[in-house]
Amino acid sequence: MSMMAQNVYIFSGVVCYLLYYEYSYISSKRIAHYYSSKPQPHQFTILVRGIPVSSGSSCSETVEKFFTEYYPSTYLSHSVVRRTNKLQHLTSDAKKLHRRLAHLKSETNPQRRSIRDGFCGLFGHKVNVLDHYGKKLETLEDNVRMEQLSVAGKEVPAAFVSLKSRLGAAIALHIQQGTNPTEWVTERAPEPQDVHWPFFSSSFIKIWISKLLVVVAYAAVTILFLIPVVIVQGLTNLEQLETYFPFLESILNLTVVSEVITGYLPSLILQMFIALVPPIMIMLSSMEGCISFSQIEKSACTKMLCFTIWNIFLANALSGTVLYRFDIFLDPKEIPGILADAVPAQASFFIAYVVTSGWTSLLSSVLFRLKPLICSIIKRPFSGKDSDELEVPSIPYHSHIPKVLFFGLLGITYFFLAPLILPFLLIYCCLGYIIYRNQLLNVYAPKYETGGRFWPTVHNSTIFSLVLMHIIAIGIFGLKNLSLASSLIVPLPILTLLFNEYCRKRFLPIFEDYPLECLIKKDREDQNDPTIAVFYNKLSTAYEDPALMPIRHPRSTDDHNSPLLQAGV
Amino acid sequence: MSMMAQNVYIFSGVVCYLLYYEYSYISSKRIAHYYSSKPQPHQFTILVRGIPVSSGSSCSETVEKFFTEYYPSTYLSHSVVRRTNKLQHLTSDAKKLHRRLAHLKSETNPQRRSIRDGFCGLFGHKVNVLDHYGKKLETLEDNVRMEQLSVAGKEVPAAFVSLKSRLGAAIALHIQQGTNPTEWVTERAPEPQDVHWPFFSSSFIKIWISKLLVVVAYAAVTILFLIPVVIVQGLTNLEQLETYFPFLESILNLTVVSEVITGYLPSLILQMFIALVPPIMIMLSSMEGCISFSQIEKSACTKMLCFTIWNIFLANALSGTVLYRFDIFLDPKEIPGILADAVPAQASFFIAYVVTSGWTSLLSSVLFRLKPLICSIIKRPFSGKDSDELEVPSIPYHSHIPKVLFFGLLGITYFFLAPLILPFLLIYCCLGYIIYRNQLLNVYAPKYETGGRFWPTVHNSTIFSLVLMHIIAIGIFGLKNLSLASSLIVPLPILTLLFNEYCRKRFLPIFEDYPLECLIKKDREDQNDPTIAVFYNKLSTAYEDPALMPIRHPRSTDDHNSPLLQAGV
Repeated sequence: MSMMAQNVYIFSGVVCYLLYYEYSYISSKRIAHYYSSKPQPHQFTILVRGIPVSSGSSCSETVEKFFTEYYPSTYLSHSVVRRTNKLQHLTSDAKKLHRRLAHLKSETNPQRRSIRDGFCGLFGHKVNVLDHYGKKLETLEDNVRMEQLSVAGKEVPAAFVSLKSRLGAAIALHIQQGTNPTEWVTERAPEPQDVHWPFFSSSFIKIWISKLLVVVAYAAVTILFLIPVVIVQGLTNLEQLETYFPFLESILNLTVVSEVITGYLPSLILQMFIALVPPIMIMLSSMEGCISFSQIEKSACTKMLCFTIWNIFLANALSGTVLYRFDIFLDPKEIPGILADAVPAQASFFIAYVVTSGWTSLLSSVLFRLKPLICSIIKRPFSGKDSDELEVPSIPYHSHIPKVLFFGLLGITYFFLAPLILPFLLIYCCLGYIIYRNQLLNVYAPKYETGGRFWPTVHNSTIFSLVLMHIIAIGIFGLKNLSLASSLIVPLPILTLLFNEYCRKRFLPIFEDYPLECLIKKDREDQNDPTIAVFYNKLSTAYEDPALMPIRHPRSTDDHNSPLLQAGV
Repeated sequence: MSMMAQNVYIFSGVVCYLLYYEYSYISSKRIAHYYSSKPQPHQFTILVRGIPVSSGSSCSETVEKFFTEYYPSTYLSHSVVRRTNKLQHLTSDAKKLHRRLAHLKSETNPQRRSIRDGFCGLFGHKVNVLDHYGKKLETLEDNVRMEQLSVAGKEVPAAFVSLKSRLGAAIALHIQQGTNPTEWVTERAPEPQDVHWPFFSSSFIKIWISKLLVVVAYAAVTILFLIPVVIVQGLTNLEQLETYFPFLESILNLTVVSEVITGYLPSLILQMFIALVPPIMIMLSSMEGCISFSQIEKSACTKMLCFTIWNIFLANALSGTVLYRFDIFLDPKEIPGILADAVPAQASFFIAYVVTSGWTSLLSSVLFRLKPLICSIIKRPFSGKDSDELEVPSIPYHSHIPKVLFFGLLGITYFFLAPLILPFLLIYCCLGYIIYRNQLLNVYAPKYETGGRFWPTVHNSTIFSLVLMHIIAIGIFGLKNLSLASSLIVPLPILTLLFNEYCRKRFLPIFEDYPLECLIKKDREDQNDPTIAVFYNKLSTAYEDPALMPIRHPRSTDDHNSPLLQAGV
């Protein structure tokens, strides 16, 4: 039986070696990518929040004064953020109307060019649609212009500040600016097209409070989700179902019914509920005060991962035994025993889960993109969009990464409990490799450059899986009264956590920021670059709110490259 | 009874208000002190560890090359650290001998100028002491010179790098230097006289391992210390003592004996054991890889504080009830009840503790400095030191701050359980204010500038006391079946922790570093300062190891200002 402990050691060692190798490889890739990158606006820009505007002067003046004083040689320009939520609604309406108008103009059937202006387009007299929409668009655009003028005054005490060198931006980022740490709070700027413009809070205290509220809301969602999990769990425990609903007994005794119910139905129901979760997580993350889609997605990815582990793995594994005695989690010593008792019992459920959720979701949601397809089929009759207007999809990291990582967790925790799961996972991995490779290369268009920043999440999740596996192993050897093997495993989680700590120190800083060496080398390259003056020009306007740009689409032609249309991409 | 909950709220509110006010006051003081300070070496210097020395070149060359490349405008000089432990022993021996020689030369009694060179100076023939010591000193100094030569090659891959501006030092400190985060690790340099020269480990991994080992050792010391605590606890529980040692019954029934034993003896014994702890903590902290006395003392102060709270407060309060059922601590829900049961019962012990430990230690150890006095009385016959050679004592922050904070904790936790403790604490505070004020102004000489960096420790300790008090309050109201009052208190610890979190964000960064605003203002002041060239000259030699300086004390005169003698100060 110490053979088994030995296996656990070897397995953990191999996983840790692979993790180390991959971390080192990805971090070197990240540095290499930085070295080979062209000057980009977000490398030179920081976001400053909590600007202490004195009553006499505007926010813009305050920023100008501060940065010309303290960054005299590197300060380039700034653009103050404005509260443009209303304006954004108006411009997006105008954009839609403009698009519909363009579509109608290209329409050849004259019947469709006129509608009735009464209830549901059924009564009233016929109107020329082109005129109707043209007028509507005109008033909308006038509104936009008026709103733009009024918004110019609504400054939020936050600004994107561009500097002339990467080092300058790094200094502004890393060194506390003012004597009050809650003022002049700096943050890395996202790529210009990645900015999530309608962010609300700029003050330190508001962001902090909204973060706290999001944590509470997240906990609430996670706990409420137990309800469908419990229902699913009830379906796998047929006996329990029969005791609750005795009248079902005759139906459940049919082999086919019971097989469908225990084998396929639970994970299908779970699937449907889980599909609802990623948008909720995105919503929560965007309420946190993140300023870019990339941040929102990264934060949602972590939330989604914890959610999946808690609600799919732990809740499913434990619901039959201890979910109702929730306070057991407050007693750390009992956890290994409980896990060892419950987790192996759910092996068949998770094997079915790999097939129903893993394989089918790979095929349906990743390869065929069923959900967007269904949505577009349902929406088309109402929106009047043309099929050739479909946007290129971006990669939904926040829903895919947690899914893949969860199957990694299943593989690691079940590798010695139920090795039968491994071939299923292997097929999943091979299928996944092929499908994701194809999708990433040919289908998805990246919305922003991740720079490998999702890797630490993958690493942490794998370390967590390893430690969970060790805890279950300790529990199992304990249950089987193999106290020697059980205590042989005890140092392993500690060693794994130390390994993780080492990796954090060795690699994580690279993923958080670029070192001085790279910054200065790139800055020196720029000095010899003749096109840098052009870049500086572009840089000074890169972070202007697209909603504030003047409407320039000519009404008579279909110029899709006008700035207003670009705004929503 | 909700009156009592209300009192707890008011009390917590007042304490938090005072904490906030004080934090803000001290942080403004800290900034003001920085503005008013003259240029000092440690403001311009950083310590670099983990220098990646390639086989072909020396450490010094590597540092020179790196900093001239990446800090071309601000790099000034550097001094590589060398392994000088052996040399330091030799120089300190030489110093002692030199001092003794000087003392003997001033001796007028010719009898004392000669000793017998045999066993204990009793047998053998008389030797002229001056000659004897003179020769000894000569060989010792030759050794020192040889060792200095050989040490010059023993470079540790660490160096103090001085830059020409405070901003330059801050950049080197805050931005990761190389692509490998474990190389070129920078750290704030301490004041030159504050450097703890015999630090061993320069590599990242060694420091990390030694930190881990220190944590383990610290836990061991803390647990082993329970033994004397249990003995003391046995003395306060007379009945328990009688059951263990029935033959003592007749003695213990005498009122005087039992009063002395229960009232005074326990805390006296505890006192004696506690006196042993600060040096142990200093030793542990110095093994952690700290590079300055100030860091060592700050780390020892935190260690000592946790130790005191755990071993004096919790162990004393709980030993009668649950010390033996140690696993109760793994069950968080029971803690309030246990504390509420145990803590009030020990009120009389802690009142006695305030008197015996607080008052007497203030008088004995702070005012009269009994321990150094006893030490010097014991040591004098052996060391031959003169009383006028007594060094000016430095402030032992690591033993005094935890003591004062512990009385703060007693005051906060017992304010509603046993208000009788408050007058005793008030007397302690008044006495303490007068005595400490006198000692700080007239007796102690600061070894280094703390810059208010101990305040966050005080703040955190007070917040901990408040939360502990809330937990005890919840437990007590729970025990008395006042579930309304009990649940009224529940939000209070959460609010207190949120308040603490706010303070961390609002004030802590100021204590960790100076903001860019200050740095640049001070740098600009320097530019207009005509004496800055002289300062730069001094700066480039400020961080040389004193053990490596040439021995320059003239043997015939008593020039106490020679560098060798300064070295040990």
